[in-house]
Amino acid sequence: MRDLKQVYLDNNATTALAPEVVDEMLPFLREHYGNPSSTYSFGSRVRDVLEKVRSCVAASINALPEEIIFTSCGTESDNTAILSALEAYPERRHIITTVVEHPAVLNVCRKMEDKGYTVTYLKVDSNGRLDMESFAGDLSCGTAIVSIMYANNETGILFPMEELGRMIESRNVSGGKILFHTDAVQALGKVPVDVQRLKLDMLSLSGHKLHAPKGVGALYVRKGTPFYPLLIGGHQENGRRSGTENTASIAGLGKACELATKALKEEAAYLGKLRDKLETALLSTCPGAIVNGRTSERLPNTSSISFEHIDGEAILMFLDSNGIYAASGSACSSGSGKPSHVLEAMTVPASAIHGSIRFSLSRYNDSSDIERLIEVLPGIIKKLREISPLSTTCGH
Amino acid sequence: MRDLKQVYLDNNATTALAPEVVDEMLPFLREHYGNPSSTYSFGSRVRDVLEKVRSCVAASINALPEEIIFTSCGTESDNTAILSALEAYPERRHIITTVVEHPAVLNVCRKMEDKGYTVTYLKVDSNGRLDMESFAGDLSCGTAIVSIMYANNETGILFPMEELGRMIESRNVSGGKILFHTDAVQALGKVPVDVQRLKLDMLSLSGHKLHAPKGVGALYVRKGTPFYPLLIGGHQENGRRSGTENTASIAGLGKACELATKALKEEAAYLGKLRDKLETALLSTCPGAIVNGRTSERLPNTSSISFEHIDGEAILMFLDSNGIYAASGSACSSGSGKPSHVLEAMTVPASAIHGSIRFSLSRYNDSSDIERLIEVLPGIIKKLREISPLSTTCGH
Ligand SMILES: Cc1ncc(COP(=O)(O)O)c(C=O)c1O
Ligand SMILES: Cc1ncc(COP(=O)(O)O)c(C=O)c1O
Repeated sequence: MRDLKQVYLDNNATTALAPEVVDEMLPFLREHYGNPSSTYSFGSRVRDVLEKVRSCVAASINALPEEIIFTSCGTESDNTAILSALEAYPERRHIITTVVEHPAVLNVCRKMEDKGYTVTYLKVDSNGRLDMESFAGDLSCGTAIVSIMYANNETGILFPMEELGRMIESRNVSGGKILFHTDAVQALGKVPVDVQRLKLDMLSLSGHKLHAPKGVGALYVRKGTPFYPLLIGGHQENGRRSGTENTASIAGLGKACELATKALKEEAAYLGKLRDKLETALLSTCPGAIVNGRTSERLPNTSSISFEHIDGEAILMFLDSNGIYAASGSACSSGSGKPSHVLEAMTVPASAIHGSIRFSLSRYNDSSDIERLIEVLPGIIKKLREISPLSTTCGH
Repeated sequence: MRDLKQVYLDNNATTALAPEVVDEMLPFLREHYGNPSSTYSFGSRVRDVLEKVRSCVAASINALPEEIIFTSCGTESDNTAILSALEAYPERRHIITTVVEHPAVLNVCRKMEDKGYTVTYLKVDSNGRLDMESFAGDLSCGTAIVSIMYANNETGILFPMEELGRMIESRNVSGGKILFHTDAVQALGKVPVDVQRLKLDMLSLSGHKLHAPKGVGALYVRKGTPFYPLLIGGHQENGRRSGTENTASIAGLGKACELATKALKEEAAYLGKLRDKLETALLSTCPGAIVNGRTSERLPNTSSISFEHIDGEAILMFLDSNGIYAASGSACSSGSGKPSHVLEAMTVPASAIHGSIRFSLSRYNDSSDIERLIEVLPGIIKKLREISPLSTTCGH
């Protein structure tokens, strides 16, 4: 009973810390507890490490060290980016984003609507692709910021960042460039991220999605971009983010970025193969299963699969009792009972959204995890189909 | 050379993590990495721990568990408290605070002045005591919030919170109570903190000042108090602070609160004795030394001592080379070169502010630390007096 193999397939919700990351953190939790703002050697040694980590994080997205601000999470980075842009351009009252953003972007935009801003929420088609036609026309001299996620947390679908960056840059606006921000929380460590190539002004990342701890993130802000801090106080991070630095977690973030960058290509190939194995097997053993956005460019680790007319929460429960962990919708909205806004935007039918499961892999998964899932899930689906009152309507 | 005894006397800047705290954190950095928002058992087990920790933190200030919001630091708690109050009472345009607050409060107030708010900065006398006479008159129906620190980080001086709480409560204002917030970052774990007795509506605390890690804090918000979150997104913390929870550090914070509460009385007595030993010895061996706010109610662990006409940074450097770590002014403003705004407010002469050192103790200090300081510091002072160009003006 107790020796059930645990299969963790929810890496877009959060990841296991890499052992190398934990090792990197421990000295800062034990002997090197000095405050990096202190002038004495016991503090300045910690400051030196912070600066090394800053270079490491910067290198992972092709930025300069001084363009990296450490934050407490992806949410803080997203909130800060958008609010900073609005403060930088007080006369501009327009934001462009997409309907499928994470709530850390979406809910700030909604709040700003309440404060009188106009927000354009770009739509996606049934494959999860952005409507690029309308985009160029949406950019106006009143637009302060375009915030578009790099990779979607629920489906893994990638947006055409390079094209977006080019279009935004080429839109001349007097009084300063329209700022281009991306939430790259799900992209980093899974696909190459290059702020130069994508012509980004700001970028958010979060440690716990790439095997660093929860509660640490970063915001990239291009040199020369006007910036207004969200947290103000003791002027840490060059006055751009106050609060005593979370030294241990920042050290962990640096190591995680280093690991992710070094192994990016091989890891992406490895994950893609595992993911394909998972999809092929489930599609062939679970009649009616559909992979959402399958034909779109996607992260190699993410698979959103709809099992129409079955209760996704019931699937998760049965998986859980078999030691398999996955998600329905995004982690954040789990338990809220609301249907996924991402799948809704892709016009997935309600009956399919209701039975959608997200599997998301990491370097710590292997074939045996996928085999275990394939051993268990088709039987669960079959059983639920039989007992489900919904299934009577599906002609199955 | 290498075996120099290290003497850490800068515990108001940051503290060593308690070994018990590190032990509490490790499982969350290793096996229990689940996302507390997840519905499956691997996540919900972590959620259960968070709720236990919440009770523990609540108990340490006599609050209810649901009144505790976990944040990323003291700065975030302070910023959130003030901005929330202003959002709760949009028609009120007045804030009351003091001239000696931490920058995490002061700089928000200054920013709000730029946005058209009026801020009353209560003055202190030469002993660091608040001018209570004027306070009652400053409270008006336009006052949204009173934010007054519990204990000063530079001098350790305590403000009369109970009296303040009573005065604020008795000031009837239509449309809702004037909110009373305190920055208790330096008080928790050193003096009893009771939100009921002090009639507080909000209170900020920070982990790394009480032997928990950097990068975690909490905000107490009394039940029924209108509240507007600073970070918005995935609705963690009941929608009051979005961002995936920093589970390991939160677990550490809980353990730290438990340890601090349990040992509070004995520890305060222990620290007070050490501090008195330090002050008595330095006053008798360093002619002209003055303890700032000595006759005021103070934290038991903090001693701000002015050595007139000597460069404080030079003292710190020599102490550092002897393995002794202390601060001049607050950690946050260290290296800024600006004279301490706290000592300035107490009308300490510039020549004395310039030579002021803060010693701050913790449970991990003992008599031998104080003895080592007393062995070293008087010689440093003497030497610096001899070579200082400033000392020629001091008649010494
Ligand atoms: C009184 C006071 N308030 C707030 C803070 C800020 O806390 P943190 O560094 O955790 O943001 C500090 C610490 O520097 C402090 O001493
Ligand atoms: C795309 C995306 N953005 C932002 C976030 C928020 O990150 P954090 O939980 O670190 O605040 C998440 C994670 O939930 C995410 O998936």
